[in-house]
Amino acid sequence: MAVHLAKGTRDFLPADMLARRQVVHTVQQVFERFGFEPLDTPVFERIETLTGKYGDEGEKLIYKILKRGEGGVRGEVDQALRYDLTVPLARVLAMNPDIRLPFRRYHIAKVWRADRPAKGRFREFFQCDVDIAGSSSPLADAECLAVLHTALNELGFKGFTIRLNDRRILADLAAAAGAKDSQSEKSFLVALDKLDKIGRAGVDGELAERGFAADAIETAWEALTPQADDAATLAYLGDKLGNRGKEGVAYLGQVRDAAIALGVDPARLTVDPTLARGLDYYTGPVFEATVDEPKVGSIAGGGRYDGLVGVFSKQDIPCVGVSLGLERIVTVMAELGMLPEAGPVAEVLVTVFSDDQLGDSLAAANALRAAGVRTEVYAGSPKLKNQFKHANARGYTWLVVVGPDEAAEGVVTLKNLRTGEQQRIAAAQAGARILESR
Amino acid sequence: MAVHLAKGTRDFLPADMLARRQVVHTVQQVFERFGFEPLDTPVFERIETLTGKYGDEGEKLIYKILKRGEGGVRGEVDQALRYDLTVPLARVLAMNPDIRLPFRRYHIAKVWRADRPAKGRFREFFQCDVDIAGSSSPLADAECLAVLHTALNELGFKGFTIRLNDRRILADLAAAAGAKDSQSEKSFLVALDKLDKIGRAGVDGELAERGFAADAIETAWEALTPQADDAATLAYLGDKLGNRGKEGVAYLGQVRDAAIALGVDPARLTVDPTLARGLDYYTGPVFEATVDEPKVGSIAGGGRYDGLVGVFSKQDIPCVGVSLGLERIVTVMAELGMLPEAGPVAEVLVTVFSDDQLGDSLAAANALRAAGVRTEVYAGSPKLKNQFKHANARGYTWLVVVGPDEAAEGVVTLKNLRTGEQQRIAAAQAGARILESR
Repeated sequence: MAVHLAKGTRDFLPADMLARRQVVHTVQQVFERFGFEPLDTPVFERIETLTGKYGDEGEKLIYKILKRGEGGVRGEVDQALRYDLTVPLARVLAMNPDIRLPFRRYHIAKVWRADRPAKGRFREFFQCDVDIAGSSSPLADAECLAVLHTALNELGFKGFTIRLNDRRILADLAAAAGAKDSQSEKSFLVALDKLDKIGRAGVDGELAERGFAADAIETAWEALTPQADDAATLAYLGDKLGNRGKEGVAYLGQVRDAAIALGVDPARLTVDPTLARGLDYYTGPVFEATVDEPKVGSIAGGGRYDGLVGVFSKQDIPCVGVSLGLERIVTVMAELGMLPEAGPVAEVLVTVFSDDQLGDSLAAANALRAAGVRTEVYAGSPKLKNQFKHANARGYTWLVVVGPDEAAEGVVTLKNLRTGEQQRIAAAQAGARILESR
Repeated sequence: MAVHLAKGTRDFLPADMLARRQVVHTVQQVFERFGFEPLDTPVFERIETLTGKYGDEGEKLIYKILKRGEGGVRGEVDQALRYDLTVPLARVLAMNPDIRLPFRRYHIAKVWRADRPAKGRFREFFQCDVDIAGSSSPLADAECLAVLHTALNELGFKGFTIRLNDRRILADLAAAAGAKDSQSEKSFLVALDKLDKIGRAGVDGELAERGFAADAIETAWEALTPQADDAATLAYLGDKLGNRGKEGVAYLGQVRDAAIALGVDPARLTVDPTLARGLDYYTGPVFEATVDEPKVGSIAGGGRYDGLVGVFSKQDIPCVGVSLGLERIVTVMAELGMLPEAGPVAEVLVTVFSDDQLGDSLAAANALRAAGVRTEVYAGSPKLKNQFKHANARGYTWLVVVGPDEAAEGVVTLKNLRTGEQQRIAAAQAGARILESR
């Protein structure tokens, strides 16, 4: 029988796991240094929890699960795999009114999208999310920028940019371009979102197709005239936009100032009024991080969503968060040679000299483990040559042999496979020796 | 809108997460001390990978997923959530012939079964599995017993028992009872598996219903006559059983001896020839761990399955492994007061005295984090009283205030909320002070 993975999914073999967990550990340590607490939710939700949150395109990508596994006689579908970690958080907040606000939570876990698999795009992938619920203060948005900035720094990224915008600025731009309702506003955002890919002429064409008038489009572009720096951009936008846009400009300015006070390098921040972000639920600032090289699109993104919890509950709770895309981060780190080297788990192989000596080898393994040494006992074919080969192929540093001579003396031979050096010592001492060489 | 979790699933809020991750960490440290390496597989597999592996009852509980999420026009199902971690491992071994054997892997992850939810039984739950692939040696089985024994010890369990049996012993017992083929052998095992619940008379009734003759059943019971200790049980069984059973007895004896040489307390082991274990794929030793109190059923189980990889590949690979059920382990630990107390993630709350002082508070937070202190900056309502209340309610040990006086002096007030003691020092020194008190 030929056997395959489900399309768009991957196994992580130990070498991958050991490298990736160092990346995750770094991210997690940064999240906790900012006071975020871990939360986990089920991988599947009732289907009505997920529908209506991700836009028409997103919704098509939700994985549906049959009712009670089987679907009953009518093949009913009542559950679905989570599409992101944000909607489940909003559900948790709605269902747990006792959670003390402001609430900082992180969630590092898999999400699923039935997307067309491509290079670097999978159907199962990890997100690393931090969110602050219950704060309307620009400080909360700034904390999200600071935690993102710190995480990217500590992962070793040198060249990256965090672009900032605010949905209220975008709404005003859409209004300037002639958008009359939320549908045409969305339409404007979808077109503007493609600016990086299709250029201004392309966006103009799309907008014309969508019924926007040329002179109104021109008014919007005028507001988008590039300025010398962020302060100038914000001042210029504040001048050009209406009340809602001014509100966005003022808020974004406060977010930016607070982020810088929290240690974010101003050179890493760029106010970019064309940044749209796809998801429906954002209401205030939106942000996105990209690395200068290689060109892989954004490696993190987020924003403020003050209306999502209210979809699930009478009591609305303002929220802001950021999500790091682990797959792209790992891809970029691998490409730039930034991934940590990960050795094997075990440090030592205890060989089995012969059936007669088995008990002595097991006692030695037991002593090493009791000392805290990560130890494999060889359980394969009995030839000593194979056992040496195994230890070398696995990349272990140490080898222990207990032959009849060693057994008679109550010692083991401890060999350092890197240096070739070997000595006869008691198993417990061998443990101490390995530990001190770590 | 009323909002609910999918049936049989749970959220893990931070307090739960923090306690559970300590349990998982202990288990993982033990797994690694035995040289097992981490592996991860997708949560869903092609449906044909999972079918035909778990028996008729098990198969019904597999969660099916619609093709490409949507199922297309015919609502096709082509994927399913994993039911355990063993079948995915067998698939990985079949698909990766370059994996060096013997291969020790662990996998701590969720599995899903569309079972009827009940106290302590969920549709989404964690398993902690270790397996050794590529060894036919009883040493591999013994390593699985030793890692289980060590994990339970290090979690703090005092009263537990690991029962051992071998499928070859069971096969011979079934033959003695008159089983003629693998179907009636399975039928015998299903009835015997209920001995704990329905007693000998109950099992006899079931066997009679399934067509076993009374005198043959009697012969099987005779072989099951309890003996004084494991050695006597093995000797007695060796005497009563045919060649296949004798093979099982001899192998199990070697496993037991090796486990004891690896440090397993013989008082924790019991050879129990009635132990059946439900899954179809076991071929040699089977084992199961139970705690004396409370009565929750088994908390871990495993065995040897030498034929499963061969289902996916021409090259068969002998395997043995053990799976710890995290939910029952956590349930028992909670009931016995063994769960570690977990404090909040953050150690200190940096308060925001006023909008004017915001920059100073953020600079203080930045300095604390740079020192490695887990720090929340208060982003909620501005009243200082609320901020103090928040720090106490969250259980933080430290509080930092930067008012106008502190700002003028370039210091912060660091208050220990446990002792009430407070001092004015530079933010960086406050960080050092918090670190040294950890």
